[in-house]
Amino acid sequence: MKLNIALLAGDGIGPEVIDQAVKVSDAVAKKFNHEINWRPALTGAAAIDAVGEPYPDETHEICASSDAVLFGAIGHPRFDNDPSAKVRPEQGLLKMRKKLGLFANVRPTFTFPSLLDKSPLKRERIEGTDLVFLRELTGGIYFGEKGRRDEGETAFDNCVYTRAEVQRLAKKGFELAMTRGKKLCCVDKANVLETSRLWRETVQAMEKEYPEVEVSYEFVDAVAMRLVQWPNSYDVLITENLFGDILTDEASVISGSMGLMPSASLGSNIGLFEPIHGSYPQATGLNIANPMATVLSAAMMFENFGLQKEGKAIRDAVNSALNKGIVTEDLADGGKAFGTSEVGDWLSKNI
Amino acid sequence: MKLNIALLAGDGIGPEVIDQAVKVSDAVAKKFNHEINWRPALTGAAAIDAVGEPYPDETHEICASSDAVLFGAIGHPRFDNDPSAKVRPEQGLLKMRKKLGLFANVRPTFTFPSLLDKSPLKRERIEGTDLVFLRELTGGIYFGEKGRRDEGETAFDNCVYTRAEVQRLAKKGFELAMTRGKKLCCVDKANVLETSRLWRETVQAMEKEYPEVEVSYEFVDAVAMRLVQWPNSYDVLITENLFGDILTDEASVISGSMGLMPSASLGSNIGLFEPIHGSYPQATGLNIANPMATVLSAAMMFENFGLQKEGKAIRDAVNSALNKGIVTEDLADGGKAFGTSEVGDWLSKNI
Ligand SMILES: CC(C)[C@H](C(=O)O)[C@@H](O)C(=O)O
Ligand SMILES: CC(C)[C@H](C(=O)O)[C@@H](O)C(=O)O
Repeated sequence: MKLNIALLAGDGIGPEVIDQAVKVSDAVAKKFNHEINWRPALTGAAAIDAVGEPYPDETHEICASSDAVLFGAIGHPRFDNDPSAKVRPEQGLLKMRKKLGLFANVRPTFTFPSLLDKSPLKRERIEGTDLVFLRELTGGIYFGEKGRRDEGETAFDNCVYTRAEVQRLAKKGFELAMTRGKKLCCVDKANVLETSRLWRETVQAMEKEYPEVEVSYEFVDAVAMRLVQWPNSYDVLITENLFGDILTDEASVISGSMGLMPSASLGSNIGLFEPIHGSYPQATGLNIANPMATVLSAAMMFENFGLQKEGKAIRDAVNSALNKGIVTEDLADGGKAFGTSEVGDWLSKNI
Repeated sequence: MKLNIALLAGDGIGPEVIDQAVKVSDAVAKKFNHEINWRPALTGAAAIDAVGEPYPDETHEICASSDAVLFGAIGHPRFDNDPSAKVRPEQGLLKMRKKLGLFANVRPTFTFPSLLDKSPLKRERIEGTDLVFLRELTGGIYFGEKGRRDEGETAFDNCVYTRAEVQRLAKKGFELAMTRGKKLCCVDKANVLETSRLWRETVQAMEKEYPEVEVSYEFVDAVAMRLVQWPNSYDVLITENLFGDILTDEASVISGSMGLMPSASLGSNIGLFEPIHGSYPQATGLNIANPMATVLSAAMMFENFGLQKEGKAIRDAVNSALNKGIVTEDLADGGKAFGTSEVGDWLSKNI
């Protein structure tokens, strides 16, 4: 296969972890006879500095004409504590999601047997956890009208959803559930929000098309609890943009390391693959960031092209690195800590 | 002191747990020479059934003319899976909060030494946790304009905040921090939401009035993680209505039992005191629900009247019940489980 992959390293540790994913992907391509054409492009604070825009048109053109996007991380502390900043790296991310039509963020949460004790949660609570969140990514309060009134004294954000938006996300959820544990949980706040009532009624109406899927409806506050109490009771969870932002980050704690969790954002066409962690500014340039989440995001990318064996080769390499202790300091637990690029080298050699 | 207390038992296990709080409060009143005039009133599904309204005017008059409100629980499953229900018990709760001006929901999360091992989190992660959430309760997306357009195909919920709303909540937060660990965390999503940027800039502007308080700003998704990773790193957290709903429920898991966590909702005048747990419909009438959260809510009520010794008498009784194993089945751990009313009896005898 010949693959054109847009490569958006972004901010902070983004470039370092992306480098490792490139190495590993190239090793996979070599082994399985594919050709990858990497197409680097600017995004985030790096793009603001270079061209004044976090997601420049040029970057969009590169993404839109590629088969997939591999993404590092976005965000820089100099923007976070300045509520009046006009341009923010995050706007680039949101613009990209919207313009590429990436309406479904897929975030698996699973445990690694060798890392069960790294979790802040007790072993018996998390053993066997294997859940996936499908977070709606191009609607809701992120994209509704927002602004100020009364000379800046009043602020507003509008949350809007259409039935069609809910349907296309829910459809992916039902389909995913059919390939897995056949359980679907719709997370909403239907006792308070009208958008949530639209979500719930839309999903209810779709139930009959998937008679094998057992559907439940839970309030977001209840899920925020149950997720840390009994994570292994869930299979597929679907939810709106903001709830998904909060709950997927919460869920990432289960596995014991954010540095291991990949994600995919899918739409009609081009998929975007990225680690769930942020740009970790304090670690920038230190060669200490864990590249595995980005490497596993590349695995999701191959799998999304239907290249299951290629994905598995990456997952197997990661598992054996974990078992052999070829890990960065976040997982070293007093043992030897390898550098970001050393882990990447080891993984690519072991494909 | 002569106290008029509106008594809103509500739905599900509400009446059972409220009965125990009344017993215990009466014992406290007797011991410390106060007089409590309990004024029962209807709310929730019970009120819908009786008068077609979850927070009838008559109930409001009773609350508004009392010194405080003691509240059980609200909610009934028959409304939850019917997105088209016209009247819902929860509307009663929201109307009550708004009409009584209860803009600050105070939710402490602490651990009980004897129960540390009940938590799904590891002991070393939670030991020493003693944090308080101040959740804004009468604004935001709960109360903004909501509805449908396009013949029901589009739903919307508006989130609105004014600077004055943020200020009065933040003021309570700073003041509370001054009486405790002097740390304040403002939880928002200022990288995406305009209302969050208003929150952040308002709190930033207030910092100089409280030079001793160390203020931090964290995104809601990051807090959803850190809360289960390092809960004992927090002291006072302030946040908007919906984030507070999700995070306070998540935090309640830390202590290992929802059945122990009280809360207060404060405004200008009358306070409302209630357990954080729901109406637990499956347990209704079985005399198995844990009354301690409601009993501890009564302790918060006394303390809010400035009656610290009275509050402490209740807390001491609860602690010794926990130490002696006078507990309901949720805490019995294979040992003897006492009934709801037996626990209430024991507590009131041990005041
Ligand atoms: C950086 C931010 C805008 C983003 C979001 O809220 O979607 C991030 O938290 C995420 O989850 O990808
Ligand atoms: C019942 C519901 C409307 C309510 C809320 O969301 O505020 C509850 O979850 C709470 O936290 O008190």
